[in-house]
Amino acid sequence: MVINYELIAQDSKTGARAGLLHTPHGTFTTPMFMPVGTRATVKTLSPDELTMMGAQIILGNTYHLFLRPGTELIKEAGGLHGFMNWKKGILTDSGGFQVFSLGNTRTIKEEGVYFRSILDGSKQFLSPEVATKAQEDLGSDIAMAFDECIPYPADYNYAKKSTERTTRWAERCIKARTRSDRGMFGIVQGGMYKDLRKQSALEIASLPFDGIAIGGLSVGEPHDIMYEVLEYTTPYLPVNKARYLMGVGTPDCLLEGVTRGIDMFDCVFPTRVARNGMAMVHTGRMNMKNKKYEKDFSPIEEECQCYTCKNFTRAYIRHLYKAEELLAFRLVTIHNLFFLLQFMRDMRASIINGSFTVFRENFWAEYAK
Amino acid sequence: MVINYELIAQDSKTGARAGLLHTPHGTFTTPMFMPVGTRATVKTLSPDELTMMGAQIILGNTYHLFLRPGTELIKEAGGLHGFMNWKKGILTDSGGFQVFSLGNTRTIKEEGVYFRSILDGSKQFLSPEVATKAQEDLGSDIAMAFDECIPYPADYNYAKKSTERTTRWAERCIKARTRSDRGMFGIVQGGMYKDLRKQSALEIASLPFDGIAIGGLSVGEPHDIMYEVLEYTTPYLPVNKARYLMGVGTPDCLLEGVTRGIDMFDCVFPTRVARNGMAMVHTGRMNMKNKKYEKDFSPIEEECQCYTCKNFTRAYIRHLYKAEELLAFRLVTIHNLFFLLQFMRDMRASIINGSFTVFRENFWAEYAK
Repeated sequence: MVINYELIAQDSKTGARAGLLHTPHGTFTTPMFMPVGTRATVKTLSPDELTMMGAQIILGNTYHLFLRPGTELIKEAGGLHGFMNWKKGILTDSGGFQVFSLGNTRTIKEEGVYFRSILDGSKQFLSPEVATKAQEDLGSDIAMAFDECIPYPADYNYAKKSTERTTRWAERCIKARTRSDRGMFGIVQGGMYKDLRKQSALEIASLPFDGIAIGGLSVGEPHDIMYEVLEYTTPYLPVNKARYLMGVGTPDCLLEGVTRGIDMFDCVFPTRVARNGMAMVHTGRMNMKNKKYEKDFSPIEEECQCYTCKNFTRAYIRHLYKAEELLAFRLVTIHNLFFLLQFMRDMRASIINGSFTVFRENFWAEYAK
Repeated sequence: MVINYELIAQDSKTGARAGLLHTPHGTFTTPMFMPVGTRATVKTLSPDELTMMGAQIILGNTYHLFLRPGTELIKEAGGLHGFMNWKKGILTDSGGFQVFSLGNTRTIKEEGVYFRSILDGSKQFLSPEVATKAQEDLGSDIAMAFDECIPYPADYNYAKKSTERTTRWAERCIKARTRSDRGMFGIVQGGMYKDLRKQSALEIASLPFDGIAIGGLSVGEPHDIMYEVLEYTTPYLPVNKARYLMGVGTPDCLLEGVTRGIDMFDCVFPTRVARNGMAMVHTGRMNMKNKKYEKDFSPIEEECQCYTCKNFTRAYIRHLYKAEELLAFRLVTIHNLFFLLQFMRDMRASIINGSFTVFRENFWAEYAK
């Protein structure tokens, strides 16, 4: 196996755990948040800035890269690492999530999914085999199995059929693999149904994946339901493999996910809200365009060690947003990602030194949902 | 004087000269290109990137900053240096150029110019006194006198009246100054008329300015006329003060300006064209969106030492433009500014080591206008 999870410490009262993830591009610490670089770039940032803030694994989206510039071209460029000049870890999704979001314009069959390109309307096809090949071309350290992300809400029969197909597709992904120097994670589905989650977890865990993702969450269900699903799913996952909760990136959900045994997360949230003027802080969120910051010459957060907070004031950042200067997006993207990466580092330290419960209590005492 | 020009070397065959400009924020080398940071940011770049590429003095636009966020606010933030966190030199224009560009919505009187804000339509007023005060609030190392930039073409009588008013305004700017820790340059006008240029040059040079700018060029006239005006204007300028040609930023004009005795230049050209997908290279320009770069895995310029060329390929940059990713603007802005700054450094070295003529010949041999 080229991806190995090493358990370092476990919280005594919750499922929280600290570990190391060994990959072809280095060893990284968990729990971990993975910034999203959809189209071979984490929006507005250079690889140097990602390195500076301590990013470890970043995410690439197969769907977008498959359509443009094409995964064959990226293979020629030395894979996604070479193409975008990123030296650390890369995880790619399978494209499934985006394809299923297309609604009426796609057709799901047993062999795969037919859809039209958003770029030029051309007919396209993704399947376990195509998605596996595409990700091998991208050369990501961790590829994801091609699955169906069940919408919320979904009726039981649909969820059951879809979950069973996801297992069959997972088997085909395993079979389609040709690169032994890269890893692949399976994805547990099952909707919000306890028995289907158990069935899916057991089936996916029985396959020779390098890690297990929990998919189909953060799709519109209340947080309580998400936490409940995690509680009855993680017990069926192997302790010696990394667990990845897909599409989650607000501090409250990261903390509660870790509490329930999750090691890895990704989400566009911190980067997307930055472009809308929202800065993430320990008490919640700040709208940087707010008039009250006009003459506020303090940083976003006083104690923050990010490049933005060490060099610029709220007044300056507000000015950049009001003037629609692109530097605004970048400075707050840097802050938000640093904030989440530091949050995960602090959480990890608390698990290791036995103070995770205090960490969690302190978080909830100051955080406004 | 807080701004001092020190002549280091002079070309034996042309007016080209190499020097040092001593300012309150350091000593800088000339000939020099100054990147434009209109609204307290050189578009898409952080101060760190500007430092990395060897930028020395950057330009701020008084007109834009006066309207938003206001020069008083910037004064409170520690001046423009503090507000945008730039540690090296800053030159600000007077706002005159932008105000005169407003056409019908402004009224020129002897006391100053009345105009409407582009932001909210409010009535505004700029004059020698207001522009001087605004620039002292901004705290730029070099302020510019408030002048009228005569359009091209302009009839003789208008040009004569305007040029004489610019001299009267220059005297009022000198009188309005209250900060002895900051410098101010005067501006020579005169349209494309030889006698008016001479008159303006002699009048402006007689005033206690720290340097002299040549304004009213690069306003639509052919290059030959610009060069001719420089040829009959620079002889009237003092040798011991820096000479600044405003609004010029293509390599051919920089080279020919230096040939005619100019030390400093500024222009939005390299940053603006970057946002349109244009990269500046020794042979001219490259349209980075061009299909022919789709699988071109070489850098923009092989020998270029900029961050972009050392880390990214034409294929990747093309992809970023096609995907409309903001990183594209930034990577090519970095390249274009580095290109011009390096061009000026190379030109300076050639003046010092006596090979300026060869440098100029080589440039014209490979450059396509």
